[in-house]
Amino acid sequence: MRTTVMYGAGDVRVEEVPDPVLEAPTDAIVRVVRTCVCGSDLHPYRTMPASGQGTRMGHEFLGVVEDLGPAVAGLNRGDLVVASFAYQDNTCDFCREGVQTSCRHGGFFNTAQAEFVRVPQAAGTLVPLPVGEDSPLLPSLLTLADVYGTGYHAAKRAKVDPRTTVTVIGDGAVGLLAVLSARQLGAERIILMGRHKSRTKLGVEFGATDVVAERGEEGVARVRELTGGDGTHAVLEAVGYRAAYEQALGVVRAGGVISRVGVPQYDDGPIGWGLFGGNVTLTGGPAPVRAYIDELLPAVLDGTVEPGRVFDRTVGLDGVPDGYRAMDRREALKVLVRP
Amino acid sequence: MRTTVMYGAGDVRVEEVPDPVLEAPTDAIVRVVRTCVCGSDLHPYRTMPASGQGTRMGHEFLGVVEDLGPAVAGLNRGDLVVASFAYQDNTCDFCREGVQTSCRHGGFFNTAQAEFVRVPQAAGTLVPLPVGEDSPLLPSLLTLADVYGTGYHAAKRAKVDPRTTVTVIGDGAVGLLAVLSARQLGAERIILMGRHKSRTKLGVEFGATDVVAERGEEGVARVRELTGGDGTHAVLEAVGYRAAYEQALGVVRAGGVISRVGVPQYDDGPIGWGLFGGNVTLTGGPAPVRAYIDELLPAVLDGTVEPGRVFDRTVGLDGVPDGYRAMDRREALKVLVRP
Repeated sequence: MRTTVMYGAGDVRVEEVPDPVLEAPTDAIVRVVRTCVCGSDLHPYRTMPASGQGTRMGHEFLGVVEDLGPAVAGLNRGDLVVASFAYQDNTCDFCREGVQTSCRHGGFFNTAQAEFVRVPQAAGTLVPLPVGEDSPLLPSLLTLADVYGTGYHAAKRAKVDPRTTVTVIGDGAVGLLAVLSARQLGAERIILMGRHKSRTKLGVEFGATDVVAERGEEGVARVRELTGGDGTHAVLEAVGYRAAYEQALGVVRAGGVISRVGVPQYDDGPIGWGLFGGNVTLTGGPAPVRAYIDELLPAVLDGTVEPGRVFDRTVGLDGVPDGYRAMDRREALKVLVRP
Repeated sequence: MRTTVMYGAGDVRVEEVPDPVLEAPTDAIVRVVRTCVCGSDLHPYRTMPASGQGTRMGHEFLGVVEDLGPAVAGLNRGDLVVASFAYQDNTCDFCREGVQTSCRHGGFFNTAQAEFVRVPQAAGTLVPLPVGEDSPLLPSLLTLADVYGTGYHAAKRAKVDPRTTVTVIGDGAVGLLAVLSARQLGAERIILMGRHKSRTKLGVEFGATDVVAERGEEGVARVRELTGGDGTHAVLEAVGYRAAYEQALGVVRAGGVISRVGVPQYDDGPIGWGLFGGNVTLTGGPAPVRAYIDELLPAVLDGTVEPGRVFDRTVGLDGVPDGYRAMDRREALKVLVRP
């Protein structure tokens, strides 16, 4: 089959590799119908040292079950399914406590930008979709694999509800879907910090009530001004850079929550009196999106929400290297792939 | 009246100053019946640059209302009252959201190691006590002003309940009362990290099921060993040094909470993948103890709990400098003062 391999910063290739096969009785093999490029794929795309060996890529996919191990219950060959970007048994104590990304038998997909994927812990990972391969809902359904569930995780962890004022930092797909999620959870004041007009325009359509294009101290001052000096109860940080965390610290209200879902590209950060003094909570992490799929699916199926609007370009597998380039240059927000 | 003044590291004096007077209609004047020295007072006691001017000290007290401004409702001259270590109106939006330490009209006491204290926002700050000045319960009631409420805040913020395993870092008064609080909230497994045997012995009487005397990597390894490698759901950090935070990070379970109530004596700390990867929440801050006094009072009054056992030495005002010295040398756990 064909798959995507990254050989270093800026060097993504599509290559022929052996088809995956069942390796454990809990595995499934899925033929990929839709996959995509993630904002987090851009981190190695910008920084990975050149390597002769290469690394396969991709963690978001939906597709058709082609083969099933004997221990996989609840699924059938031919089912159209969506996978969470992390696999999990969905039964262990960590899964029951809502941190499926820390499952005792779990891990992260990293071969999904391909024609087929081997799925460990298939019963706990794949969710059947009641639509056909030709459904116009596929882009929105694919966002359940990561970006929508991740934006939702940010909002849930920040306890967003109708009484909560919200700031979202970042106008990438996750930031925009954090806006959508905050709106779904009832927030009436949602300030989106982002400076790419085509993206913040979509953010407004998703529910943002204010857009702040300024960054750093200026951006903080603007949000403070919009909130009578107090900042917002919830700050959803969907970027992952230290500057974004510092911005979050600047706009959070005393007693509020900073919820991070952008993978931090830094280790140390300020957590002294500036965080502690106002009883601010710092939370978030890799989203246990499996926990949210059942909850989010109905509104996607009935068209109440259209998270798939974050895709603004579609390519075939051969177009994946161009897709990375377009996202890196911010010419595309998020690239959908039809293998 | 006589009061405590700190002139620099190691230099605490008792001096004569004018009696406080009402300055605002919302003020009260309280004659101090009991006050004490706090672990947090030891930070300036160890680091304050010498100063000719001096700084008055103390934020924990109970006493008798001597005078009341015309706008203070619900209190009478002669009432025995306990104050929270921060004053607040207890009516503003921050107070209603449970962060009384961020009250719009609030602040922190810093003159309580004295004969009299002026209490701003008296109606929102002073809680009448249904006992006399000679009650043997006074030491326990005084802990409601700070250390007990602060330990309780750590446990509440960490969502301690009967299903929660708990680690408490620090065997000072707050750490020991965090143990007591976790037990009150139903925790059945409470690991106390501390190496002062007389203190950890009291911790065991308060409800600790395990004591780990090791610190740093050894201490982390020991807690991991005690928890099947997983760490505990809640980690209550009652020290305030970066090493204690790093220890917390080492013993917290995926999906768990690090709840800090020791005032951080550091600014930057590790908040990258080590915190984020396991969806660990970092919370805590200056405890809004006013929020907890009504909840904690009944069990103190009926003797179910005896948080006042953290006091192991009693002095008069003239003995305050010796009290600081004894706590600094760890000869005393917490020093009670009868002015």
